[in-house]
Amino acid sequence: MNITEIEAAAVRAHGHIRRTPLLCSPILDAMAGRHVLVKAECLQHTGSFKARGGWSALSAMPEDLRAKGVLAFSSGNHAQGVARAAAAHDAPAVILMPSDAPAIKVANTRALGAEVVLFDRATDDRDAIGAALAAERGLTLVKPFDNPHVIAGQGTCGLEIAEQAADFGVSQADVLVCCGGGGLTSGIALALEARAPGLRARPVEPEGFDDAARSMVSGQKEYNPALTGSICDAIITPAPGDMTLPIMSKLCGPGLTVTDDQALQAVALAFTYLKLVLEPGGAVALAAALFHPEAFEGDAVIAVATGGNVDAEMFKTALTRFGGNDE
Amino acid sequence: MNITEIEAAAVRAHGHIRRTPLLCSPILDAMAGRHVLVKAECLQHTGSFKARGGWSALSAMPEDLRAKGVLAFSSGNHAQGVARAAAAHDAPAVILMPSDAPAIKVANTRALGAEVVLFDRATDDRDAIGAALAAERGLTLVKPFDNPHVIAGQGTCGLEIAEQAADFGVSQADVLVCCGGGGLTSGIALALEARAPGLRARPVEPEGFDDAARSMVSGQKEYNPALTGSICDAIITPAPGDMTLPIMSKLCGPGLTVTDDQALQAVALAFTYLKLVLEPGGAVALAAALFHPEAFEGDAVIAVATGGNVDAEMFKTALTRFGGNDE
Repeated sequence: MNITEIEAAAVRAHGHIRRTPLLCSPILDAMAGRHVLVKAECLQHTGSFKARGGWSALSAMPEDLRAKGVLAFSSGNHAQGVARAAAAHDAPAVILMPSDAPAIKVANTRALGAEVVLFDRATDDRDAIGAALAAERGLTLVKPFDNPHVIAGQGTCGLEIAEQAADFGVSQADVLVCCGGGGLTSGIALALEARAPGLRARPVEPEGFDDAARSMVSGQKEYNPALTGSICDAIITPAPGDMTLPIMSKLCGPGLTVTDDQALQAVALAFTYLKLVLEPGGAVALAAALFHPEAFEGDAVIAVATGGNVDAEMFKTALTRFGGNDE
Repeated sequence: MNITEIEAAAVRAHGHIRRTPLLCSPILDAMAGRHVLVKAECLQHTGSFKARGGWSALSAMPEDLRAKGVLAFSSGNHAQGVARAAAAHDAPAVILMPSDAPAIKVANTRALGAEVVLFDRATDDRDAIGAALAAERGLTLVKPFDNPHVIAGQGTCGLEIAEQAADFGVSQADVLVCCGGGGLTSGIALALEARAPGLRARPVEPEGFDDAARSMVSGQKEYNPALTGSICDAIITPAPGDMTLPIMSKLCGPGLTVTDDQALQAVALAFTYLKLVLEPGGAVALAAALFHPEAFEGDAVIAVATGGNVDAEMFKTALTRFGGNDE
């Protein structure tokens, strides 16, 4: 994997993927003690950066294979990214979702034109169902992060960060990335290595689910003890990917963690000072920038706000608990 | 007033004012029955388009006058726009605010470096206090809309809309603008006349506070019967301006109105589908695009989302009442 594949993904994405803004607020700067630049990927199509990887994967497929369709396992943002890209390429998309997935996510994925197949987490074998569907219909599986085209697509976000940081006069800084399987973190790291070597990607994870940080330390895949128990569900994965971990180990700075409460407070602060809607998992990088100032050097830090697909109840909870300076 | 002054304002604003994105969502398109493009001015510095007019006014002032300072009457967005521009130009700013203004707006204006002078709505004469302060300190009053540099500054938003609509292939459409005194509406109208003559600005106001719409019909200044009673407080003014009304009468299409409930529902829909935080007064244009499809022709409409300075309680109310499809 290198910058050539990311640049090719950027060419394929032109006109189909948004160049999201890099935002800031003097009050957040004061809180963090340095300039905080926020890459607003929640404003991306489908509400998260996953539209980049989905577009990259679909647009790179051979036409005959693509015409048969694609398959994805996802209850969330990856589903919508793949569904949108498939619809635009006139390719059938089948998304396997747990039957207890929130109704709104099922509805959104269907609204993007995908066929949603529900399975029972307790009794069904997701992989077996997927394999049978793929064999029967000739579908191609689009993995959420261990796929070079997906990593290259997420890397296009890093190309934009390199250019936009330069516009702000920032050439030396940590770039904090909300990290699940590591597709976005590793894609951004590859882009920065080539285009802005003074910027360094660092994964941010919820406390207790820091598989990427621990894996980078140990040099091998470390697993999370559980897959539930954090409100940052969008970025909880079993472990970093076989493709993403080596890239992160080589290029990234040490991982960081934040508590669920810090993520929720960052959601409220993004509401008040950036006018952005973030989901908790999409706010952990901003939380690290604001609440762990001791972890950085220099006078600027960049945080990627990866997604905004949060339900109304969770958002109201964030405002009730941490939006009190508005009263 | 013409395009030359708007282009000069754009030159002065370069690097200091954000080029805000033009966003869309397939689900909002389906609701409106046409392509809905949303100009996200809530992402502007200070959370509203008022940063444009404030910057334009301050940057156009003679240096000696500016050094003495500026004065503004405002309890909201104009205060912050002027305060930010003044601070950046090392000019003192005095903002006269009613003593019952929300504490957060007083705090935000002070955080931007302005001196806030409070007056009692019931017993004090705001204009007399302002005149005395101006005389004593040599301050220059920056009016919120009846000022050619302010109108030119707001017009820079129209230059961006002209370019961004062309990127979407949209050359014929109504451009809906949340309208208070008409500074933004008239500035955008002037920019579009010169740069995108197929795009037509139209003011949108809260029901019962449609002074601009009625004034355009009658050909003279019409006043609102009251100045309170709508949640869209940011855009309630006594009447359109002496400078803005002739421009709107000449260039704009008919005005539109929406109910407070429609504005609140648009706030919830912008949360869900655009990941934007809007204040009710900043959402009336989007509400008109979504809930008055019969008022437009053609396959696209552009709505300016003018601001996002909403308190947490109001936002939670919008989500509770209209965010139910997230459950």
